[in-house]
Amino acid sequence: MSATAPGGAYAPTPRTVPARGRKRASYDREVVHAILDDGFLCHLGFVRDGAPVVLPTLYARVGERLYVHGSTGSRPLRSAGGDGGLPVCLTVTHLDGLVLARSAFHHSVNYRSVVVHGTARQVTDPAERAVALDAIVDQAVPGRSADSRPADAKELAATAVIALDLAEVSAKVRTGGPVDDPGDLELPHWSGVVPVRRAYGAPVPADDLAPGVPVPGYLAAL
Amino acid sequence: MSATAPGGAYAPTPRTVPARGRKRASYDREVVHAILDDGFLCHLGFVRDGAPVVLPTLYARVGERLYVHGSTGSRPLRSAGGDGGLPVCLTVTHLDGLVLARSAFHHSVNYRSVVVHGTARQVTDPAERAVALDAIVDQAVPGRSADSRPADAKELAATAVIALDLAEVSAKVRTGGPVDDPGDLELPHWSGVVPVRRAYGAPVPADDLAPGVPVPGYLAAL
Repeated sequence: MSATAPGGAYAPTPRTVPARGRKRASYDREVVHAILDDGFLCHLGFVRDGAPVVLPTLYARVGERLYVHGSTGSRPLRSAGGDGGLPVCLTVTHLDGLVLARSAFHHSVNYRSVVVHGTARQVTDPAERAVALDAIVDQAVPGRSADSRPADAKELAATAVIALDLAEVSAKVRTGGPVDDPGDLELPHWSGVVPVRRAYGAPVPADDLAPGVPVPGYLAAL
Repeated sequence: MSATAPGGAYAPTPRTVPARGRKRASYDREVVHAILDDGFLCHLGFVRDGAPVVLPTLYARVGERLYVHGSTGSRPLRSAGGDGGLPVCLTVTHLDGLVLARSAFHHSVNYRSVVVHGTARQVTDPAERAVALDAIVDQAVPGRSADSRPADAKELAATAVIALDLAEVSAKVRTGGPVDDPGDLELPHWSGVVPVRRAYGAPVPADDLAPGVPVPGYLAAL
């Protein structure tokens, strides 16, 4: 499958064209990358014994590839080590606002999401695995991997990483205010949007942190 | 399957006992309810044509049942209307902190998650569907359903709701600071936790909101 169509877009496939809300769908590579780059927590779905499983996990984007972190003991990662890899669906969602309409029916949320379908494979190359692990740390805290002790051989061996190429990908975005029926506009209910965002609190030093170790500047950038 | 074991806990099953991190797992009903009640966005996984699909959607908890909202045209909701219902995995995750250790290997996140396995079924009873839709609005904005125009018969007919009983359920929670190897404690890297939370901005009135409609008090409670 071709990862990208001309014009910097992912080629739609039957399972990346939504049954509903097609107007909100996007296959634009920059849109997809921006949504992925604004997060670090995904929900990874796979099939086990015929039933769906959805687990939260950390990820990083490196070019047209996602890396997902895990222990070598975890079930999906073991499965991804098989010959065929593991069919997965990886979803990243950012909630941007609560949309309050006059009618209960038109209530909604503003959001940005990306859904990636594909086959995840274990990363066995040690060099690629080291890059992936750094990327996963830096996806959550840009600049942090260079300011920590790198994994040693034993730690690298105890960590599994799976890779998922960005090929069958779609984004979905809702923005803007409520859309009420014309007949509801005179109702007395407040309507509008309550913005929602991810917020960071002041860093809390570890109990065993030596006095005088300053809070690194890259944390202020969060 | 029994929904609860004695002592207010969900009975563990093979698929709710994690392969990794068992110490972080909980089957306590109050723990599960508190995590579910602190959110309104879930990731719903199901199997389509043998492959996993994970979609973000809104939910509400009413007692020992979750309701998930959708249009009657959406694929999972149509499937859930079949005789056997739709096997799903519904996951709710709250990110509470970035855990920065001296070693890259021990980086982690603080989080609270709930994973529900089960069979979703369409809610066909009109009275239950109305209750569910109010609950979904109130899960995101407590008190809002009473301050909006209720759905009329046409809107109710155009809205599908699926129900998922809380029976096969587990929670997973990580709290606290980084756990570094003793040999790393003297390294110069800052270590600790950066708290993360969901934050709400000031409500933004709709463009067509009449002047003088006050921001309702229940929004301040968010």
